[in-house]
Amino acid sequence: MTYFEDLRVGTRTEVGSHTFTADEIKAFAREFDPQPFHLDEEAAARSHFGALCASGWHTASMWMRLRILYGQREDAERTARGEPNAALGPSPGFREMRWLKPVYAGDTISYASEVIEARASQKRPGWGLIQVHNSGTNQNGELVISFKSSAFVERRPDA
Amino acid sequence: MTYFEDLRVGTRTEVGSHTFTADEIKAFAREFDPQPFHLDEEAAARSHFGALCASGWHTASMWMRLRILYGQREDAERTARGEPNAALGPSPGFREMRWLKPVYAGDTISYASEVIEARASQKRPGWGLIQVHNSGTNQNGELVISFKSSAFVERRPDA
Repeated sequence: MTYFEDLRVGTRTEVGSHTFTADEIKAFAREFDPQPFHLDEEAAARSHFGALCASGWHTASMWMRLRILYGQREDAERTARGEPNAALGPSPGFREMRWLKPVYAGDTISYASEVIEARASQKRPGWGLIQVHNSGTNQNGELVISFKSSAFVERRPDA
Repeated sequence: MTYFEDLRVGTRTEVGSHTFTADEIKAFAREFDPQPFHLDEEAAARSHFGALCASGWHTASMWMRLRILYGQREDAERTARGEPNAALGPSPGFREMRWLKPVYAGDTISYASEVIEARASQKRPGWGLIQVHNSGTNQNGELVISFKSSAFVERRPDA
């Protein structure tokens, strides 16, 4: 992770993108969201969605995957350059999860995270608290998911 | 689904419970939240969690599964009694997701949903809008997850 001091309000990270296949939409739905429009093309065609689409929890969980993998790549690159990595604290949760448009089978969603607030933590010396706006946009440029999260990020030891 | 008119503020539903095994915690994490404390017992023992624990997205997605299965059982029972089922509209999203305590391997989480607000929709005649507080509690009675959701629920045709 980048140290708190290197994050600014407005810092935007493209965390990665993913194409949702029909098979993985159905596999997630069988396990976690067994509703007809997430499980079966024909049933979905008859629903208000009009076609097979991913569970909102699937779209959200995919953000988590890509965010973690992005951070791991970034950390590996810093390590390769001989630079230290800041620690990221546990997430207390998130706010305002919005599923704005369906994610249909074959859609490619690009996820981004933007720092919208950053302040030194009063309660936890050595840590900063950031507020992040996370979003997913489909191949047509339409916002499909948005939510806000908070995270504790380690400050530079010399800060 | 129960018709909007049969839901009251304070109506509480025990939607079901689930025991999170180490294997399924790791399987979810490999796919959606590949962090050491969700993937490996030894790494988890060295982390601030102290032991293998489930991704918060896993705990949240399990609520969805149990809520859907509960609704399907309830609908089947109403159908068996010759009673009609109300339609449930799409969910616009969730608010205030809080992961309050870790869910460790072997923990059994019981999920409940309580109506905290109910009003007829002005914009959508024939529908009511409810606000629901959802929670998950472990076998020690500790709240581990809580969040709020909104849903459109069909009104009785004669209302």
